[in-house]
Amino acid sequence: MIIAMNEGAAEEQVQQVIDHLVRMGFEVHRSTGARQTVLGAVGARVDFDVRELEVLNGVQEVHRISAPYKLVGRSFRPEGTRVKLRNGLEIGGDQVAVMAGPCSVESREQLWRTGEAVAQAGAKVLRGGAFKPRSSPYSFQGMGEAGLKLLRECGEQFNLLVISEVMEISQIALMLPYVDIFQVGARNMQNFNLLRELGKVRKPVLLKRGIAATIEELLLSAEYLMAGGNYDVILCERGIRTFETYTRNTMDISAIPIVHKLSHLPMTADPSHGTGRRDKVAPMARASVAAGADALLVEVHCNPDKALSDGAQSLYPEQFAKLMDELRIIAPAVGRRIA
Amino acid sequence: MIIAMNEGAAEEQVQQVIDHLVRMGFEVHRSTGARQTVLGAVGARVDFDVRELEVLNGVQEVHRISAPYKLVGRSFRPEGTRVKLRNGLEIGGDQVAVMAGPCSVESREQLWRTGEAVAQAGAKVLRGGAFKPRSSPYSFQGMGEAGLKLLRECGEQFNLLVISEVMEISQIALMLPYVDIFQVGARNMQNFNLLRELGKVRKPVLLKRGIAATIEELLLSAEYLMAGGNYDVILCERGIRTFETYTRNTMDISAIPIVHKLSHLPMTADPSHGTGRRDKVAPMARASVAAGADALLVEVHCNPDKALSDGAQSLYPEQFAKLMDELRIIAPAVGRRIA
Amino acid sequence: MIIAMNEGAAEEQVQQVIDHLVRMGFEVHRSTGARQTVLGAVGARVDFDVRELEVLNGVQEVHRISAPYKLVGRSFRPEGTRVKLRNGLEIGGDQVAVMAGPCSVESREQLWRTGEAVAQAGAKVLRGGAFKPRSSPYSFQGMGEAGLKLLRECGEQFNLLVISEVMEISQIALMLPYVDIFQVGARNMQNFNLLRELGKVRKPVLLKRGIAATIEELLLSAEYLMAGGNYDVILCERGIRTFETYTRNTMDISAIPIVHKLSHLPMTADPSHGTGRRDKVAPMARASVAAGADALLVEVHCNPDKALSDGAQSLYPEQFAKLMDELRIIAPAVGRRIA
Amino acid sequence: MIIAMNEGAAEEQVQQVIDHLVRMGFEVHRSTGARQTVLGAVGARVDFDVRELEVLNGVQEVHRISAPYKLVGRSFRPEGTRVKLRNGLEIGGDQVAVMAGPCSVESREQLWRTGEAVAQAGAKVLRGGAFKPRSSPYSFQGMGEAGLKLLRECGEQFNLLVISEVMEISQIALMLPYVDIFQVGARNMQNFNLLRELGKVRKPVLLKRGIAATIEELLLSAEYLMAGGNYDVILCERGIRTFETYTRNTMDISAIPIVHKLSHLPMTADPSHGTGRRDKVAPMARASVAAGADALLVEVHCNPDKALSDGAQSLYPEQFAKLMDELRIIAPAVGRRIA
Repeated sequence: MIIAMNEGAAEEQVQQVIDHLVRMGFEVHRSTGARQTVLGAVGARVDFDVRELEVLNGVQEVHRISAPYKLVGRSFRPEGTRVKLRNGLEIGGDQVAVMAGPCSVESREQLWRTGEAVAQAGAKVLRGGAFKPRSSPYSFQGMGEAGLKLLRECGEQFNLLVISEVMEISQIALMLPYVDIFQVGARNMQNFNLLRELGKVRKPVLLKRGIAATIEELLLSAEYLMAGGNYDVILCERGIRTFETYTRNTMDISAIPIVHKLSHLPMTADPSHGTGRRDKVAPMARASVAAGADALLVEVHCNPDKALSDGAQSLYPEQFAKLMDELRIIAPAVGRRIA
Repeated sequence: MIIAMNEGAAEEQVQQVIDHLVRMGFEVHRSTGARQTVLGAVGARVDFDVRELEVLNGVQEVHRISAPYKLVGRSFRPEGTRVKLRNGLEIGGDQVAVMAGPCSVESREQLWRTGEAVAQAGAKVLRGGAFKPRSSPYSFQGMGEAGLKLLRECGEQFNLLVISEVMEISQIALMLPYVDIFQVGARNMQNFNLLRELGKVRKPVLLKRGIAATIEELLLSAEYLMAGGNYDVILCERGIRTFETYTRNTMDISAIPIVHKLSHLPMTADPSHGTGRRDKVAPMARASVAAGADALLVEVHCNPDKALSDGAQSLYPEQFAKLMDELRIIAPAVGRRIA
Repeated sequence: MIIAMNEGAAEEQVQQVIDHLVRMGFEVHRSTGARQTVLGAVGARVDFDVRELEVLNGVQEVHRISAPYKLVGRSFRPEGTRVKLRNGLEIGGDQVAVMAGPCSVESREQLWRTGEAVAQAGAKVLRGGAFKPRSSPYSFQGMGEAGLKLLRECGEQFNLLVISEVMEISQIALMLPYVDIFQVGARNMQNFNLLRELGKVRKPVLLKRGIAATIEELLLSAEYLMAGGNYDVILCERGIRTFETYTRNTMDISAIPIVHKLSHLPMTADPSHGTGRRDKVAPMARASVAAGADALLVEVHCNPDKALSDGAQSLYPEQFAKLMDELRIIAPAVGRRIA
Repeated sequence: MIIAMNEGAAEEQVQQVIDHLVRMGFEVHRSTGARQTVLGAVGARVDFDVRELEVLNGVQEVHRISAPYKLVGRSFRPEGTRVKLRNGLEIGGDQVAVMAGPCSVESREQLWRTGEAVAQAGAKVLRGGAFKPRSSPYSFQGMGEAGLKLLRECGEQFNLLVISEVMEISQIALMLPYVDIFQVGARNMQNFNLLRELGKVRKPVLLKRGIAATIEELLLSAEYLMAGGNYDVILCERGIRTFETYTRNTMDISAIPIVHKLSHLPMTADPSHGTGRRDKVAPMARASVAAGADALLVEVHCNPDKALSDGAQSLYPEQFAKLMDELRIIAPAVGRRIA
């Protein structure tokens, strides 16, 4: 951490800051120039609040030096993390894994028709929600455990792994037998109680960026998971909130190469939530792969017009098959392949 | 809802949209002009997804007409809601209620010294957190129920009501005997499971705006609470995320008069979280009252330099007393008074 | 335009709004439902301020129906615009045109080395700035007309067209003999005086999106150019300002398919300004082409470490050549080709 | 400037960065810790691009230490600047100066009726636009010099100073005899050519914050004016663009105390443009004064319903008079007075 004092800061102000740093456990290096004094603070603590220093008298500005994350940083695993899954699938390797399926599991027929279609088109993981807390108590709330069972059974039938969203700690144990990857939604990116419990699980976690979260905050949440002992973390861009209103969110494609530079963790993209509109999903899916995404999460529904949730952003099966063909052309440009 | 078709939309496209609306339960009025066809859809449903229509062929744009909230709208109670509390305090009336106290309850001594100071300065409600999920498992996590007991005891000693944040459904029953107002934090503004349970409680709820939430979304979350049967809802502005980085968040003071126009619910402000820096709390507290806020939530600590959390945004007791004096000057400009 | 009145709006309030609309030149259709009255206003005017209606008593909300632009709308030219340039190059056709070169023209040697490299790699247009107003009066301010002459000469030598930024009305006549495309920078997107003059010019204009401009505002500025008589307008995404601070701006790749849906004008991308960092230019250039961009604008410098401006976002010639090879793989996925 | 190298950065990478800094004219201090090397660079240059260093191999992050502005910084004039105007009015002193008047000068009658009303209510400066570039070439474009003459004449009649917006360099000489303060609009905040010329003028300049500009960027533009020799600079908050759509812009009231901390320049507020809606102007004007604004800029029109521009955000004269009475109550809370 670097603390720049105001020009003309009094000596006792400088001493007060030094004392504060020492109390916080830092070793302090002082450098006094012609115009101002600059303090360097070195130490092992990462969980401090820089504002404590910013509000001290005489302080001009404070900068953290080293990123406050350790385990997620690129230098921890310079070669990059490959999350290994059943059936030999790896996320973070040469293959761009595509995870596809409906927003919610609605019925056996709906899931089988969708699952078969996405498997035929080349998807490797089946996605589907079992818990859907909705704003109206009369709306469809998800099938719960019955939905998870269907996901697992459908996945086995079509040789697909299973990913599904976990929303509360109490759902972890329930989901464990059915899913291959736990998905944490954007609203729970900073639900530290949930992250703490998922840190103890021995299955991969796909962590979505919150709509108001910086990339650094996404990495800090991933650090929380890894600090808990779960090193199989997959990150996911799904759009941030900006002033542009045409799309629900603005998908920040540049987060893909940025995460790859800062971290060793696989970085994926969800163009369905990232745009919220079916007609923008394919362009943004292509853009994500072209920018280097390690995997995609795409909503597909056998009959989007009848979907019980998010039908407007679900692809028709034939649109998904066409998209997969386009991705097969693009992937070699970044040294990758689609299944 | 109004659906504008593209210029030159085919007749079958128009029919498809009409059919879709009828299936959704709407009554449809069609108006065909020289350049385009416009459809008006009237009906009782509020829980639909406008994007379902936006993605239909031939549709240019879709607008909701009536706000999707009913109970929180101004017209439900044109005279405004006054949330009545013990001891005769009302939020939403002539008096601007000030709620003050530490970020977290840390000890009996800390709470008593702070509570006495804020009561003497004129605060009517004691605030303090009992649960503090933190990014580091080694950081202070809050005192839990022991903290709640201290809050209640301290409140009784200094004639202060008690407000504290609830973070999970399981905490509701635990907190019920101790608090007068449940506070829902910005991260939980759209935790619909939690809101559903708080809708059943017969104590007031103070709901904070999420950092990426529009005013409409804040009102929708309040609608959820009211639909559950709890009409004693208090709203709170605490800053939104913008591109400006000098402050943690940008406090949207204009949300105060906007909520007052759109809704009958009391609208309050939290300048401590809204700015994140002690030296900006007093100006923004004054601005909030001048803009018409019904109450303030202010962090005060008897010794901010030693605070276990958020010390940088906590006022010293003497700063708080000075602020209260300033507010006493300002309040009459908006026809209000401070205690 | 649709005006929804408040529930319970008085009849004289409705009449006042109708009178106001009639004075504005609209034809009004009234529809009174069980809960509220809705007014539809139809007419030829586009240059009105909806807020005039929003602030009338009894008005709940106002929606524009038809987009306020006519000439740039997709329906004006459903087949899409192809901007035809010398040498047979078209922007908006099957070929993705790449425009490349240094931020500023600095010297004959710098321009020739860069120009030769980008031409060899397949660029079709040479970019370079001649006017550089800088925050320090001691910084390099651009070569002015001498720079324009070099651009033209270098372009002829390597068979490249020329694009350069125009910043003031007085520069138009000066630039006319030298450039094939006028570039309007993000800061001037709403400089209506400049746009008015460029509307009279018979050379294409590439209009960049402002960093705080919505897509609708970009289209409105294009409408201004077209209304002035210049139909050869090319749009360009170059990043918007968001809360994310890792990159200078957040490049909104989704603007590419959105503009293609709303308008017939070609939509291009500038990944150099869109990211501000050399190591993010190639991923975002690839993403732009994968999302359907009609052309790219890329900063390349023969020696970026010595560049007088924007060196940090300029590619090395060998990086540019590699990028072009990658784009040649990607373009067929969207039915396009690179030169 | 502080440059933190990656953990494990090679020695030649460190040397390359040091060499680069030395070439840029900096003196370099090196500090090598257990985990990483940190370089401190000290020097007089302020007009460099930190990204040049960020993209060097082995660099983790770069921080500017001292703010890149010198003349506008608080330490340049710790006691604060008072801009002295004719008639003894000071902006930045004990009095909160109110500048009021119509968006545009439309006619002698309109200006006299409005000017008399705002003078009676206590305004000290008359505002009014003479140049109005509009999106439609058929809309009212402002009265030009005739409007400036009316402003001056009306100001003299009612003992009001005059402020008006300058949009192009060519208008400066024309306006000089008529105005007491030049206003620079949000769109021109970074029009460095215009700022350079205004730096040479010996009349005060009121500089508005751009809708996408950080507070630091506003101060940098002010630095440009001061570096040109014009020390009478007044800053103005008028709203920034955020995701909230209910208001045109989100007025950042916290910018008022922040500018007062960082700079000695007076900081004012424009609640008319800051909100864009008449019914929000008074609350935001009150909030601005309560937060410490040195002056206000308020749009008032004798007949807003007939205004040729921005009628929706113009106050009626009686609303303005009421607002002035409210401000007289609030100002003493911050040790100020309204005329």
